[in-house]
Amino acid sequence: MQIATKELQTLAASVVFECKLKKYTLSCAESATGGFASHLITNVPGSSQVFVGGVVCYSAFAKQHTLDVDFDTITEFGAISKETTKALLEGLKEKMGTDIGIAITGIAGSIPIEGKPRGLMYVGVSTLDLDPFIEECHFEGSRQEIKRQTAKKAFEMVLRHLERI
Amino acid sequence: MQIATKELQTLAASVVFECKLKKYTLSCAESATGGFASHLITNVPGSSQVFVGGVVCYSAFAKQHTLDVDFDTITEFGAISKETTKALLEGLKEKMGTDIGIAITGIAGSIPIEGKPRGLMYVGVSTLDLDPFIEECHFEGSRQEIKRQTAKKAFEMVLRHLERI
Repeated sequence: MQIATKELQTLAASVVFECKLKKYTLSCAESATGGFASHLITNVPGSSQVFVGGVVCYSAFAKQHTLDVDFDTITEFGAISKETTKALLEGLKEKMGTDIGIAITGIAGSIPIEGKPRGLMYVGVSTLDLDPFIEECHFEGSRQEIKRQTAKKAFEMVLRHLERI
Repeated sequence: MQIATKELQTLAASVVFECKLKKYTLSCAESATGGFASHLITNVPGSSQVFVGGVVCYSAFAKQHTLDVDFDTITEFGAISKETTKALLEGLKEKMGTDIGIAITGIAGSIPIEGKPRGLMYVGVSTLDLDPFIEECHFEGSRQEIKRQTAKKAFEMVLRHLERI
């Protein structure tokens, strides 16, 4: 079942609200969600006070050239891996300098990549000086449904970790 | 009136199809649309063969740190200007190395910026060795309606210019 846009938009608004309350800035590195999380965040009025920017690092080339992800990390572990997700979060901190970072990499389309199954997603959140939180998820459904489940997961992870800092 | 998602998705599919046909790669720099154009493109099956990546350069900081836009360009002309749009396209060529670049900057939200009116948008397209094409647009409606009109404009500009190269 497809998650309703309204539910996703409410979660994005909560992320913006909580960040604003705590005076935290936010950025996103999106591979498989292709800009969808950033789009939802920037739909929220006042998001520009919180959201510094994002990178849609769809290809390995973009991961390397915009967020300085090491080529060896991608070749050794794959673009869809916990290690690459961690490298994306580090790249975000370096380039965007935000308090909170969201990184997403996985397979939303119909073609398996790196011998990994469709619906596999790594969602990572970095929060200030805490170690990054990275979860491996397995979603089902169409490309759009997988994108929606992933964005929901990312926003819920941010909200959960904002309670702890 | 809000442009239907189906219409936007059809246009994005045409952009991917035409780029694939001509073996061109594509990237986006999005400020005011906040990742929406990238999201529509990456919804198209097979877009990974064409779309290298994008930058959601929402803040001046992101414009400088991800696409090397000169701080002086932003202070002299404003983030919402033809000159900054041109600088975003140049940054895309440098960082993403794609044949086609889309750059969008403007005001979709309800607060005027730099003394410029809500709905003002600059949409730029760079195509290989041709000079970039930049159009100043004035859209009306809600934040979402303005984002949609801008994405439509960007895709139509790409399609028009793909016919010429």
